Amino acid sequence: MKIKIGIAGYGNLGRGVECAIRQNPDLELFGIFTRRNPESVKTAFESSKVYCVDDILNFKDDIDVLIICGGSATDLPVQTPEFAKAFNVVDSFDTHARIPEHFANVDASAKASGKVAMISVGWDPGMFSLNRLYAEAILPDGKDYTFWGKGVSQGHSDAIRRIDGVVDARQYTIPVDEALEAVRSGVNPELSTRQKHTRECFVVAEDGADKARIEHEIKTMPNYFADYDTTVHFISAEELARDHSGIPHGGFVIRCGKTGAESENTHLIEYSLKLDSNPEFTASVLVAYARAAYRMNADGMSGCKTVFDVAPVYLSHKSPEELRAHSL
Amino acid sequence: MKIKIGIAGYGNLGRGVECAIRQNPDLELFGIFTRRNPESVKTAFESSKVYCVDDILNFKDDIDVLIICGGSATDLPVQTPEFAKAFNVVDSFDTHARIPEHFANVDASAKASGKVAMISVGWDPGMFSLNRLYAEAILPDGKDYTFWGKGVSQGHSDAIRRIDGVVDARQYTIPVDEALEAVRSGVNPELSTRQKHTRECFVVAEDGADKARIEHEIKTMPNYFADYDTTVHFISAEELARDHSGIPHGGFVIRCGKTGAESENTHLIEYSLKLDSNPEFTASVLVAYARAAYRMNADGMSGCKTVFDVAPVYLSHKSPEELRAHSL
Repeated sequence: MKIKIGIAGYGNLGRGVECAIRQNPDLELFGIFTRRNPESVKTAFESSKVYCVDDILNFKDDIDVLIICGGSATDLPVQTPEFAKAFNVVDSFDTHARIPEHFANVDASAKASGKVAMISVGWDPGMFSLNRLYAEAILPDGKDYTFWGKGVSQGHSDAIRRIDGVVDARQYTIPVDEALEAVRSGVNPELSTRQKHTRECFVVAEDGADKARIEHEIKTMPNYFADYDTTVHFISAEELARDHSGIPHGGFVIRCGKTGAESENTHLIEYSLKLDSNPEFTASVLVAYARAAYRMNADGMSGCKTVFDVAPVYLSHKSPEELRAHSL
Repeated sequence: MKIKIGIAGYGNLGRGVECAIRQNPDLELFGIFTRRNPESVKTAFESSKVYCVDDILNFKDDIDVLIICGGSATDLPVQTPEFAKAFNVVDSFDTHARIPEHFANVDASAKASGKVAMISVGWDPGMFSLNRLYAEAILPDGKDYTFWGKGVSQGHSDAIRRIDGVVDARQYTIPVDEALEAVRSGVNPELSTRQKHTRECFVVAEDGADKARIEHEIKTMPNYFADYDTTVHFISAEELARDHSGIPHGGFVIRCGKTGAESENTHLIEYSLKLDSNPEFTASVLVAYARAAYRMNADGMSGCKTVFDVAPVYLSHKSPEELRAHSL
């Protein structure tokens, strides 16, 4: 009996989940649930069924885990507590500052329904969070650093697109090599925002637009760009499509800490990701945690969970015996 | 109430545990248990109490977790099942091929006593195993590689010391840069033993010993050196003491995998360690898992566990709320 997965929401992330399920022998796609007209949705695979999300409760007993692929700003705060009333769910809620509030809302629903609701799954929050926790638990006398990139920031790209005279834009977040090397050297440096990352923008401007003004507006934009060294390149729509259509991302979690009777020894723990497709990798993490959600619920657990609450053994399709014999 | 830790066995690893406990505000050392005359043991800190291991059962109710710091060849297969009859225990059993057998023996003891017995904790097995599991669960269509070093292999150093005419020796295992780069490039290469690591040996020979013979015996030694490109340097005892008295180690776990409807996207997950002191880092991992063993037992769990069975939240001294708010 395969674990049957539902997908709620079909953008880049939902499509990534659709693809990732096929790589796992113990999982199968039940169907995709959309707010659009189901017939208008073009799925990655012809065999994937598409339903109207309004009908989802009809399939309450057919879906083992629902992966919710909405956005963190307005979709997930509503959808995850709602769907957790009927399903084991997994989401990728990534507004770090609002996680405690989201946790409380989802926990209330999932405790009442007896389901497992896994929130904030992906790579940050997600795998990066795990690596921060593990590294700090092992080396309490130390300091950790998270760097992002090189990769596309959707939020920063959108911010540029809202500027008058901009047709399209793509923004890359880039970690500063000197900062990475300073951290790896073990000196636990204090690093300003500007010292850690640079921002590189590729902008398609309207014909006749004032490029100097656009560049100035980007570089001085509060929160998004003003605290960074930002580079702006004006390119054609063709160049943007040709050279910047991917959604790569990645980054580093590094912790350096001391041990010994007199703190005489230094240790470096580094975790890094280099991803061709941010949504497809995030989807792959969601799918592994969907397996865990199903199994934890089958083991009698319920309520809201994060990656911190999941024993690694729940993530693998292999048996505990096989894992101990071959992966330990 | 702090968690009270006992240490069974006092070599480099036991001393590392003694030091690591002090870095954790919620833990305290109860005492060190030794087979030697307790008065002959020189501890890292004067305040550390030393007892005869024969008396350990007198302290059954005073010790929350016992960290067993014996060797994997002969100590742990006997000690861990024995001590698990009376204590929550943690060991660093690292004979990969014998883990299933060790697990079964320890599980029987710990299930009978109602204690938690955590085996094979450290970095390999341990943190490297975790990273193999997480990476494979996320990217099933891929391949993982483990590289060790640059670091001192105690087993290989000992093997050289057993050669006639050798006074002392230190062996470094070194990952081959070209192999690391091939793996990171995403081609998932097939790599032979020789292609992955080289071995570098620093040897102090007896006066008048036949160095050509010693070098030949090292380079042709089955299992240890014959399958590797091995370099041998003869140095003085003073040089060995001056330049090679540390016990550094480290390594890399790298997985490269594909996603997408047509496997068109490649992702790289890399975890690496660079350790000044192998035993002190291993000890730091043991101490974090001692906290987990105590808490899991307090939550009603018992039996043998590995790092795969431990939800990360159990490892941190911070509360789940604090972790969600600041580390997630």
